[in-house]
Amino acid sequence: MSKFTRLIRFLSSGTVHYGDAILPAGVTDLSQARQARKIVGDVFGEHSVTADVLNVEKLLPPLPQSAVPTVRCLGLNYAAHAKESNMPLPQYPILFYKPTTSLSGHLFPLPIPPIAQTTPEATIDYETELVIIIGRSGRNIPASQALSHVLGYTVGNDVSQRTWQIERGGSQWSMGKCYDGWAPFGPGIVTTEVLGDAGDLRIVSRVNGEVRQDSRTSDMVFGVKETIAFLSQGTTLRKGDVIFLGTPQGVAMGMKGVKKWLRDGDEVEVELEGVGKVSNKVVFEKEAVHSKL
Amino acid sequence: MSKFTRLIRFLSSGTVHYGDAILPAGVTDLSQARQARKIVGDVFGEHSVTADVLNVEKLLPPLPQSAVPTVRCLGLNYAAHAKESNMPLPQYPILFYKPTTSLSGHLFPLPIPPIAQTTPEATIDYETELVIIIGRSGRNIPASQALSHVLGYTVGNDVSQRTWQIERGGSQWSMGKCYDGWAPFGPGIVTTEVLGDAGDLRIVSRVNGEVRQDSRTSDMVFGVKETIAFLSQGTTLRKGDVIFLGTPQGVAMGMKGVKKWLRDGDEVEVELEGVGKVSNKVVFEKEAVHSKL
Repeated sequence: MSKFTRLIRFLSSGTVHYGDAILPAGVTDLSQARQARKIVGDVFGEHSVTADVLNVEKLLPPLPQSAVPTVRCLGLNYAAHAKESNMPLPQYPILFYKPTTSLSGHLFPLPIPPIAQTTPEATIDYETELVIIIGRSGRNIPASQALSHVLGYTVGNDVSQRTWQIERGGSQWSMGKCYDGWAPFGPGIVTTEVLGDAGDLRIVSRVNGEVRQDSRTSDMVFGVKETIAFLSQGTTLRKGDVIFLGTPQGVAMGMKGVKKWLRDGDEVEVELEGVGKVSNKVVFEKEAVHSKL
Repeated sequence: MSKFTRLIRFLSSGTVHYGDAILPAGVTDLSQARQARKIVGDVFGEHSVTADVLNVEKLLPPLPQSAVPTVRCLGLNYAAHAKESNMPLPQYPILFYKPTTSLSGHLFPLPIPPIAQTTPEATIDYETELVIIIGRSGRNIPASQALSHVLGYTVGNDVSQRTWQIERGGSQWSMGKCYDGWAPFGPGIVTTEVLGDAGDLRIVSRVNGEVRQDSRTSDMVFGVKETIAFLSQGTTLRKGDVIFLGTPQGVAMGMKGVKKWLRDGDEVEVELEGVGKVSNKVVFEKEAVHSKL
């Protein structure tokens, strides 16, 4: 009755399951999992990986929106990205939030609502990020105990609309980062048992196969342990909370000359070593689409 | 089988109930409710106010944290407050978030963690605000339909630590506004049937009985309908979402000369006409307090 190390959430025969991914030898990309061992119990607590092997018919976001109380993000947390943004290195982690309605997963469409289709340029950008999933709630967590509060890691795309983030947001970044589906994450969650503090992993983004960001988490200004200790000061981090840890250099906004913003139909992909890839197709909405909620 | 107009949540004989507040003639402050008619069903949907009268032994936050997906806030949304902050009037609503762990209620302590006790001054400030509670989910909601998505209104205190908000936050306000209990709201929720678009209500704050803010919601730059239409662009607002609509002039930060920051032991109170008062005692934490979650 073992614990999972590579958690995925998926559809199999029309039912949602959690499973421990089964990967071919040498493969670590969870988006390649075609089978998984079914997990029974609470993935945040008592659970076990069974011998029951299920087919992975469709990957889902590793947690449903309803299991994530809060999405926190850090800004300017890679030294080279701060430089390309013409910003000084932060003295303290820079905190902002995305609503949980922004959470999405691998191969889900990335909808661009009319508000984000600014003219003359729709300044839509990608940000590949290491993401922490909190597994156990805590407040004022010392850095030395931080990893015991981590369920695992995944990769996410902090999709950003720069006109709203920078020019029209009144100094606050939220209106440029908040739209439904603008935080794809996944393809699964890999535990600290496998990845430790995730402090030196390759992290990449690609648009239509072209590499845009290619860095390592070792360039982060504030690492996993420090970030959890910092953010939990006076603030209860809850199980299921998601923390995006900032993006490395290579975003469109930082380009000299023509900036390669995301366009309708583009395939944008983020990848983290040891976790895998999350790919999404950019879909410009032609009119205001109402929610089915 | 009527619907509620003045929703409160409270303990009676050790059990949590929702009720429609019973107030003495001429009283509109829900914090004065000593009895309420028990509500059965879903306060966001099918429910009814029964003839069963319960004693209100302790008021609770009008919704539990678990019923609130997201807390949104507007900045600089009162003309005179923008002026005292030396900021121009915003062209668009300025959006930021607080985590739902910040939600608290009338007569609950307001804990000040060590991180917020900056030296030489602990720059802790109050912000009285009109608060919208979303009752029905929607995306791209037209202003003309906005009120049909409103469960009702309440008053909240967007407690703010100015050193972290302004100087140490790296331009983002979040780290100065995020702590557990830093968004008391209540004492209950009054519907649009009673308050319409809440567009011209007196809004006040007091510290130890001294009036600090005393304005009207008619000074808001962006009103209830415009705010819902704006924020729902490309973004699903969910039932239970809470929107703080910004604060009028009179905060400590805006004072000339000595700024009257909140101090250990102060009683801070926010009040909205037609809704009532929320009072909280400021409690400086002497050491890092761990959560019981």
